[in-house]
Amino acid sequence: MAQVQSITLKHLSLPTHTFVPPKFNIPLNRNLSFTPKFTFSTSLSVRCYHPNLVQPKPFPPLPQRPPVAELPQQRVYVGYSVYTRKGVLTVTPRPPEFESKSSGAFKVSKEGYVVLQFAPSVGADEPIYDWNQKQIFSLSVSEMGTLITLGARDSWEFSHETVKLKSNETEVRKVLKVEPLLDATGHLFSLSVQKKPVNMEGIQKNISLPVTRAELAVLRVLFNYIMPYLLGWNAFGNSIKPEVYSQVNNTNSRYGADNEWNR
Amino acid sequence: MAQVQSITLKHLSLPTHTFVPPKFNIPLNRNLSFTPKFTFSTSLSVRCYHPNLVQPKPFPPLPQRPPVAELPQQRVYVGYSVYTRKGVLTVTPRPPEFESKSSGAFKVSKEGYVVLQFAPSVGADEPIYDWNQKQIFSLSVSEMGTLITLGARDSWEFSHETVKLKSNETEVRKVLKVEPLLDATGHLFSLSVQKKPVNMEGIQKNISLPVTRAELAVLRVLFNYIMPYLLGWNAFGNSIKPEVYSQVNNTNSRYGADNEWNR
Amino acid sequence: MAQVQSITLKHLSLPTHTFVPPKFNIPLNRNLSFTPKFTFSTSLSVRCYHPNLVQPKPFPPLPQRPPVAELPQQRVYVGYSVYTRKGVLTVTPRPPEFESKSSGAFKVSKEGYVVLQFAPSVGADEPIYDWNQKQIFSLSVSEMGTLITLGARDSWEFSHETVKLKSNETEVRKVLKVEPLLDATGHLFSLSVQKKPVNMEGIQKNISLPVTRAELAVLRVLFNYIMPYLLGWNAFGNSIKPEVYSQVNNTNSRYGADNEWNR
Amino acid sequence: MAQVQSITLKHLSLPTHTFVPPKFNIPLNRNLSFTPKFTFSTSLSVRCYHPNLVQPKPFPPLPQRPPVAELPQQRVYVGYSVYTRKGVLTVTPRPPEFESKSSGAFKVSKEGYVVLQFAPSVGADEPIYDWNQKQIFSLSVSEMGTLITLGARDSWEFSHETVKLKSNETEVRKVLKVEPLLDATGHLFSLSVQKKPVNMEGIQKNISLPVTRAELAVLRVLFNYIMPYLLGWNAFGNSIKPEVYSQVNNTNSRYGADNEWNR
Repeated sequence: MAQVQSITLKHLSLPTHTFVPPKFNIPLNRNLSFTPKFTFSTSLSVRCYHPNLVQPKPFPPLPQRPPVAELPQQRVYVGYSVYTRKGVLTVTPRPPEFESKSSGAFKVSKEGYVVLQFAPSVGADEPIYDWNQKQIFSLSVSEMGTLITLGARDSWEFSHETVKLKSNETEVRKVLKVEPLLDATGHLFSLSVQKKPVNMEGIQKNISLPVTRAELAVLRVLFNYIMPYLLGWNAFGNSIKPEVYSQVNNTNSRYGADNEWNR
Repeated sequence: MAQVQSITLKHLSLPTHTFVPPKFNIPLNRNLSFTPKFTFSTSLSVRCYHPNLVQPKPFPPLPQRPPVAELPQQRVYVGYSVYTRKGVLTVTPRPPEFESKSSGAFKVSKEGYVVLQFAPSVGADEPIYDWNQKQIFSLSVSEMGTLITLGARDSWEFSHETVKLKSNETEVRKVLKVEPLLDATGHLFSLSVQKKPVNMEGIQKNISLPVTRAELAVLRVLFNYIMPYLLGWNAFGNSIKPEVYSQVNNTNSRYGADNEWNR
Repeated sequence: MAQVQSITLKHLSLPTHTFVPPKFNIPLNRNLSFTPKFTFSTSLSVRCYHPNLVQPKPFPPLPQRPPVAELPQQRVYVGYSVYTRKGVLTVTPRPPEFESKSSGAFKVSKEGYVVLQFAPSVGADEPIYDWNQKQIFSLSVSEMGTLITLGARDSWEFSHETVKLKSNETEVRKVLKVEPLLDATGHLFSLSVQKKPVNMEGIQKNISLPVTRAELAVLRVLFNYIMPYLLGWNAFGNSIKPEVYSQVNNTNSRYGADNEWNR
Repeated sequence: MAQVQSITLKHLSLPTHTFVPPKFNIPLNRNLSFTPKFTFSTSLSVRCYHPNLVQPKPFPPLPQRPPVAELPQQRVYVGYSVYTRKGVLTVTPRPPEFESKSSGAFKVSKEGYVVLQFAPSVGADEPIYDWNQKQIFSLSVSEMGTLITLGARDSWEFSHETVKLKSNETEVRKVLKVEPLLDATGHLFSLSVQKKPVNMEGIQKNISLPVTRAELAVLRVLFNYIMPYLLGWNAFGNSIKPEVYSQVNNTNSRYGADNEWNR
């Protein structure tokens, strides 16, 4: 931990992994049971586009399926908040999305993520948080991987550029810097959001909040916990039941093809 | 781990994060799906008030709802105990509380925590634990974050002040010190509880117990495990099911608003 | 990790925590909701008795309760095996036991543990494991805490003495040493089991198996996973559901007494 | 972490654990409740055979048992992908298999594993992944243990040799090298697959992809999460319920035999 200071500099000067994959041309493939879809990993990219492709919804919900509200399914809103004099940082998870294949199996169609909400304090003597001024920054699973490995003296800079593709009139650029505090008690989280209409001066809003070592440790624990869920691995894990994956099923196993050895 | 001794000193002399937020004035906010409530984080505060606001219960349980005992719900009391010659330390988790919103969704209204119970030994030759003399100290999730990141040579001091607001007659001040043992085999947990009526001398009770490195490791494992539960993240995680978050739901997704990118 | 070599020596010369608590005299206690039972932590004890108190079973299973076989409950035997030329080490978890209180709540009455089974190889050219010669060693949760924190150059010695109380005719002494391999590729697990009838020479059996760094990492992951289960914390965690711990329940909360603050 | 560079060299020159257990001769054993089967651990073996024993299926699925598709069981395909300019690496878990014993209990008959799929990019300016050219490499649980403990400057080489036993006509040799990138931003994953018909020159295909520190951290989190599932420990864990393992069951406990102490 204590010797990684030099690595920090390398991070900030990294020109690697700055590619912009506009679209993936996946060739046809006969016997591929698992097709990795366009799950655009943004981790470690110092500059990385997240184009807001406004996809038309292909069709409305099927009528024969009961609407979501009728399912005995529970929505639960959770988070973790870091309260400081200067403002509040609230971290909340967002679930992945699945799609069902013709075989009845499910696969993850969109990875989950976490949302960092920054709200400044407008109080003079005591903190009064103004949620109308909140700014948000979303972290992908790979970006969460960066945060959980950040050493006590490491810095990192997450950068998201959102280009409105339709009219291309406004570019939104968000940069989240995470830097060690001078007194070594934690890290400073600084979010700057720049909205820049084409051929015009941009408006930039900044908010910086100190996050203590202990609060960062809580975030690490929460990220460690939730990352498998955001990738749907919990759904896979929950499907592992002795009565399902017992010897009888072995004969029509769908996983046998890519097994390199038998035990 | 071995080089953090100097940081220890900084911790103890830290004057930061000692603010006392008496009440939060959260402005009205139209389109905020998640409202972080008054979840008063006490981590890393060297001095931090936990006023015992005796809130009147707003109304009794609704009659049309079956009482808790009738629900097929299981209460389970668990803990982890460190037995020493000088006394016993038992750590037990306390669950969070939820409230249901008008939409039927739930949100965490009160974070869970863990309770540290210290009971001294009154035996001469063999330990006899006197639970009548027990002293307790509650750790918030953020304070648990401090404990799990505590290095082998780190010290920390948790301080809770409880002021009885009604008559203001008694102030209870609790300090939990966690310091490395001289023989480097673990940490000493020292709890002092001071009850001080106004304008009077206080009564102070102290108990110190050695916790070995291995026992602290068990506490770290347990805290890592339980922290997401204390914040309700397990309820969120359990709600992630393929049949619920499938493509069809995407059209009426409630999470789409703060998504910065599509994949 | 690399600097803990000096700590190793301290461990081996540790005379601390060698007490033998023959019985605990827990005084009567009125308002104690959670009573830590005799859950005898053996961690870090260089010499530690586990007397085989043969407790008479108080009463047979209640007739109105369906026998276990009729419950839709699944027994699953799992483990993790380290195969070497010299023998095999298999680690298997053992579940905790619960007791129901008059309130209907459950509490852990006996902690779970893991069993280490050592079987030597009797093959000349290829390993043939002789399970008839197997020796076992049980690790308590606190002892698992020792193992998961063991550094790459750390050693440890677990010692269990089992005294047959009834006739006191045979003393069984088991010592498990875990030492770094000379080539730094892992640790050597050496189990010696000494059966010593009173006033007679003892018979000692030894088996030593090398466990690689990777296999020890798997054990760490498994121990991290299973330790909360062995203490019943998963049962507590599973009981945390929004519909159960919602605001309505707050009025008859059983956990409110030892809460130091309201949020 | 920073000082383990010298250990790396030792790893690569390791001749240990290269044995080939063709078959295990497990002697009859009366009172052994848990029989570790042939679960062939491949971890840390620099050269290790995985013979593709094509076992004849003993019998078709029993007719009185409903087919898998009728069970209310969900198949979920999950993974985690690392997208680079040179290609894509997708990691997917494969479930364990269980067998039911005559007692009705289940045991793991085949450990789960993860599959690493490498597909090269054939695009010139932007990455186009050609899944027809994909190469796969399976990691056992112990090999996952190697990967999660790999330090920032550590290297490792996994080697799998698959010999087609039937006609012995083709030998497939796969080597996965994991080496630190020169700029210390992560590791290079290099897979070479050599197909060598008997008495003929082999064809070798290579693919190398950079995996950043953050992406490796995600893999670590996922492996930590899934490893207990791949060994079936989640099924054991889920079976720990207070109403099942309560005092009443104690009388006919099947776990009592190898318990070294009572608490």
